[in-house]
Amino acid sequence: MKSVDSVDLTGFPVEELPGETVGKLSEAARIGRAMSVLMTTVANSGHPAGSLSSMEMYLMAYGVADLNPENCDSHDRDYVVISHGHTSPGAYSTLAYYGFISPGEVLAHFRQSGSPFQGHVEREVPGIDWGTGNLGQGLSAAVGYALAQKARGYHGKVFLLGSDGEQTKGQIAEARRIAVKQGLCDITALVDWNHIQISGNTDDIMPANIPVLWKADGWEILECDGHSFQDIYRCLLEASKIDSPVVILCHTVMGKGVSFMENIPEYHGKAVPRGDLFTLAMRELGWDPSHLVRIERERKLAPPRGREILPPRIRIDTGEPGLYQPGDRTDNRSAFGKALEDIGMRSYGDGNSDPLLVFDCDLAGSVKTSGFAKACPEWFVQAGIQEHAVATIAGAASSAGVGSLWADFGVFGLSEAYNQQRLNDINRASLKLVLTHVGLDVGEDGMTHQSIDYVGLLRNTFGWRLVVPADPNQTDRATRWMLSEPGNICLAMGRSKTMVLSSEDGTPFYGKDRPFEYGKFDLLRDGKDGAIMAMGSMLPGAFKAWEILKERGIMISLYVVSAPLEPDDQAIRQAASTGRILTCEDHNVNSGMGSIVGSRMTALGLNSRFTCMGVHKYGTSGAADEVFAEMGLSPGHIVKKMEELLR
Amino acid sequence: MKSVDSVDLTGFPVEELPGETVGKLSEAARIGRAMSVLMTTVANSGHPAGSLSSMEMYLMAYGVADLNPENCDSHDRDYVVISHGHTSPGAYSTLAYYGFISPGEVLAHFRQSGSPFQGHVEREVPGIDWGTGNLGQGLSAAVGYALAQKARGYHGKVFLLGSDGEQTKGQIAEARRIAVKQGLCDITALVDWNHIQISGNTDDIMPANIPVLWKADGWEILECDGHSFQDIYRCLLEASKIDSPVVILCHTVMGKGVSFMENIPEYHGKAVPRGDLFTLAMRELGWDPSHLVRIERERKLAPPRGREILPPRIRIDTGEPGLYQPGDRTDNRSAFGKALEDIGMRSYGDGNSDPLLVFDCDLAGSVKTSGFAKACPEWFVQAGIQEHAVATIAGAASSAGVGSLWADFGVFGLSEAYNQQRLNDINRASLKLVLTHVGLDVGEDGMTHQSIDYVGLLRNTFGWRLVVPADPNQTDRATRWMLSEPGNICLAMGRSKTMVLSSEDGTPFYGKDRPFEYGKFDLLRDGKDGAIMAMGSMLPGAFKAWEILKERGIMISLYVVSAPLEPDDQAIRQAASTGRILTCEDHNVNSGMGSIVGSRMTALGLNSRFTCMGVHKYGTSGAADEVFAEMGLSPGHIVKKMEELLR
Repeated sequence: MKSVDSVDLTGFPVEELPGETVGKLSEAARIGRAMSVLMTTVANSGHPAGSLSSMEMYLMAYGVADLNPENCDSHDRDYVVISHGHTSPGAYSTLAYYGFISPGEVLAHFRQSGSPFQGHVEREVPGIDWGTGNLGQGLSAAVGYALAQKARGYHGKVFLLGSDGEQTKGQIAEARRIAVKQGLCDITALVDWNHIQISGNTDDIMPANIPVLWKADGWEILECDGHSFQDIYRCLLEASKIDSPVVILCHTVMGKGVSFMENIPEYHGKAVPRGDLFTLAMRELGWDPSHLVRIERERKLAPPRGREILPPRIRIDTGEPGLYQPGDRTDNRSAFGKALEDIGMRSYGDGNSDPLLVFDCDLAGSVKTSGFAKACPEWFVQAGIQEHAVATIAGAASSAGVGSLWADFGVFGLSEAYNQQRLNDINRASLKLVLTHVGLDVGEDGMTHQSIDYVGLLRNTFGWRLVVPADPNQTDRATRWMLSEPGNICLAMGRSKTMVLSSEDGTPFYGKDRPFEYGKFDLLRDGKDGAIMAMGSMLPGAFKAWEILKERGIMISLYVVSAPLEPDDQAIRQAASTGRILTCEDHNVNSGMGSIVGSRMTALGLNSRFTCMGVHKYGTSGAADEVFAEMGLSPGHIVKKMEELLR
Repeated sequence: MKSVDSVDLTGFPVEELPGETVGKLSEAARIGRAMSVLMTTVANSGHPAGSLSSMEMYLMAYGVADLNPENCDSHDRDYVVISHGHTSPGAYSTLAYYGFISPGEVLAHFRQSGSPFQGHVEREVPGIDWGTGNLGQGLSAAVGYALAQKARGYHGKVFLLGSDGEQTKGQIAEARRIAVKQGLCDITALVDWNHIQISGNTDDIMPANIPVLWKADGWEILECDGHSFQDIYRCLLEASKIDSPVVILCHTVMGKGVSFMENIPEYHGKAVPRGDLFTLAMRELGWDPSHLVRIERERKLAPPRGREILPPRIRIDTGEPGLYQPGDRTDNRSAFGKALEDIGMRSYGDGNSDPLLVFDCDLAGSVKTSGFAKACPEWFVQAGIQEHAVATIAGAASSAGVGSLWADFGVFGLSEAYNQQRLNDINRASLKLVLTHVGLDVGEDGMTHQSIDYVGLLRNTFGWRLVVPADPNQTDRATRWMLSEPGNICLAMGRSKTMVLSSEDGTPFYGKDRPFEYGKFDLLRDGKDGAIMAMGSMLPGAFKAWEILKERGIMISLYVVSAPLEPDDQAIRQAASTGRILTCEDHNVNSGMGSIVGSRMTALGLNSRFTCMGVHKYGTSGAADEVFAEMGLSPGHIVKKMEELLR
């Protein structure tokens, strides 16, 4: 139930709006406009004119959505996604009207450090379902929510509000196609079509035939007067009855309601200055300009805290560990695929499990999700070669009560979609990102396909955890662990068949009794003469080097680093006590595990001879063994480097 | 002039192809198909079926293009861009036919480590104008070349070859719109429309109405039988006469010419196995299967070297240093904009200068390129909110005889377009990327807009240089330096007005007599009790901290770090000799300058107390000073940290 003052239109109770309702909403729009102008002037910063343009869209979408202060933290409800996150004053005014937030607090603390009312909408504000601001992202998030709803068998609606300037972003077209292919009839998009973007008229900046573009991808188009509640309501109601995704193009005026702001691009991103112009704006909107003084006083109080967003924990049976024996020859991606299929089969059709969506961008055969696709066809989403949209879709879905996993080559799932993964981090999503073919082990595909930056990319985020399993057993364990954990987790693997690591007694090192421990550098072999820390596809070569050194009477500690973002201080101290550390990775040497360990050693004040082995230039294209040798990362090279450290 | 065997069709000398020419080309196609099958079988890896599908497109496009072994390293010629880089066997066979490369060498050394004939096409192979493989990139590169040609007043043609599977990538739509807006009539795109992608039929994987999509963005559409030379030639000729960009949709059969490969998705990415199937394929293509043995023998020889690609040096007058005095209040982005405008005005209309293209994504006012836009309207490219395409377009243009600069907010120019910048590095482009609003200094825009990863992103590349100027004088110097240097260079700046750094005698520290030195950590103040290394927007705060510490009798060395990717060993040793180093940056502390310095110290075996100050979580939204204080990066925090190190 929304707040007392508001009209409860949830779920379209009437065929057309009663006059009294229109009156109340018009009054709300007037106040929302005044609030938008006021909060930007107080903050001396922000985007007032777009907020005024979208005001009726905001009030109407939040009005009809089954989304209120009571249910906004649950999943059984409608979703509202705001793609033009810079029109936050319009969104906040609307949320204040419907009782999600306090109008006084948002007026006083908009764009104030420490307040949840950031310049661009964020999930800390109740009623905001996805934090945006980087344009072109919202429709993908809406598609993610709709997919999650559909998988959960809950037929909630998803409303997307966006701007005309962002319509040129390619990611929007990608998301449109996925919505149509997946039959997401419950999405309704509203585009604020005021023809103005920050630098001028949209047709001058970058012409785009908006209706034709949506139509070309299979959406139904409706058009309305974006300042008429009756008209928007009529379209929303009609859209709810149409058996395909619908976009409502809302004809609006930027800066609507304040004479000197209307159609003036300058006010896209500029507050009305204090003084006569502010007074005039308030007068035109029927508000007392003296509010400014009061609000400025209130701004001196401590800002409120936002709501806490925690990635949801899903119900899923992750099964029992699979076991590979030393001597078995398989690749880590197959071990992942097998564990995923096992988990899928346990859960599919089991009413006690949450759905697990698995996304693919035309590489299922290579990333080993085909088994899952066959076992759980309704949970497998073939999204084509559209990585930007998929990154956001899969991220948003993971926040909405389903498991969500996207498997792709390293360069596509992370390098290509880095910003989307950064935004998934900011949104505290719970995506499981599986990267295969990372490192030089991509072999013949050559340098454009070498994902030698995945550690370096994810170390730029604060929430992502990264696991680079060392062998098929650890891959199996990490796959099951990751699906039971909330939060964004990336599992990164090479391509080639690899060895099953064994303990000195010949049993599997990662046996069934060794649970996966995130952040631990595992000591595979102990030695006092030096230490090698190896990651991922370098393990077999490092082990071979260890054997050669042993034959030469040199006893080395060999550590498995499966969580390069988490330097294991205890292991590093122990390794440093041998006097020499050699790190080995088929990753850019400047940004990878070795540089993290090296930097951590300085912070810990440790003194030890130290060399990083890694990739120093874009690599060659050939069989993986050849490439490793050419790039100076063969077992022989490792032996040589360690012997240099021993000199 | 192309090779003796070939037919010289450069520039459409005839209205239709003579029968004899068609015969010769058909024979070339047959041999090209056999070569494509053979080289993938020898390598036991690669994409044969798409190569067979595109064979006539390749032969015809390279046939009519004014591009040959003699002119392929110059700029006054036509360009050919291959977007479906995995069909490299088709491209290489064609280049061998036209004499760019040796057929024997490519057959023997395809996908062999050390050879230029990588799995996906790269510029080391003469005749390859842009290295691709990550799909959806090629059209953007073609637009970049066409823009460069237009700016140079040279009306060469640009041919783009691509696949149907990649048509869903949003970046293609972005590039289409820019081509139309810029009136690039000299681009002709050819799409290999065989309806098969790696996982199956394109309509099953991700439906996309290809003709409607191109039409929607304003391109003219032609269709042809993609296996008929006559038909492709007719369309290419027609396209050359049409006054808009044209796409030719080529109806083809994947695997064309080998019965068991036709329309079989498996052969998208799989070589024909040795044995009966290989023999059958060779027989059907009229080639002797015993070539295999000979070629396998030749593969044991050392692979050939590729051509060397150097970023071009452009002719441009970068003017005289501007000078700001201590006490002047401006921001670095304005100093950049002023220097850029000065350079533009010196060169615009000067026949001795190469053109300088400046790209904008609807933020010229904020990134301070409006002055340049006004002064040099023909060189200013307003590309709308389409960052992925722009990154590649600007990168390709920079390789084609013009200066090319793209200014944008940090999160858009780099975080959003990271993979495109990685590919610009692989392609050894010469882009000048200007990032403004980096760090916490983006202030009120909040966390989605905080570019706190730009150091961490670029340290993943091998060629990019990064400059974070400390004050308006250094910004001016770095702007002029960067435009005179070949190679990809990024200039990153905050948003706020900042101090002009002065020497102890009160004169500007970066005076006219101090040229910009890339990679030098400048000693702003000398002291023996400890050292602070500060970057970018942290300089004013670090200087204030230095003053406070001085008042307390603590003499600190203060270093300006303007090239965080290049640890200055001499400065680090000198700083370490004080016994304590504090690094300060408004960048993610895990991936930024401090971690680079820390890691370098371990490599150098230096021992010193060491603390990194930086960003530990996504930041707040408010006035920059407030945000710095909230995030623990105020002058007071710096003083406290240094005092802790001194304890």
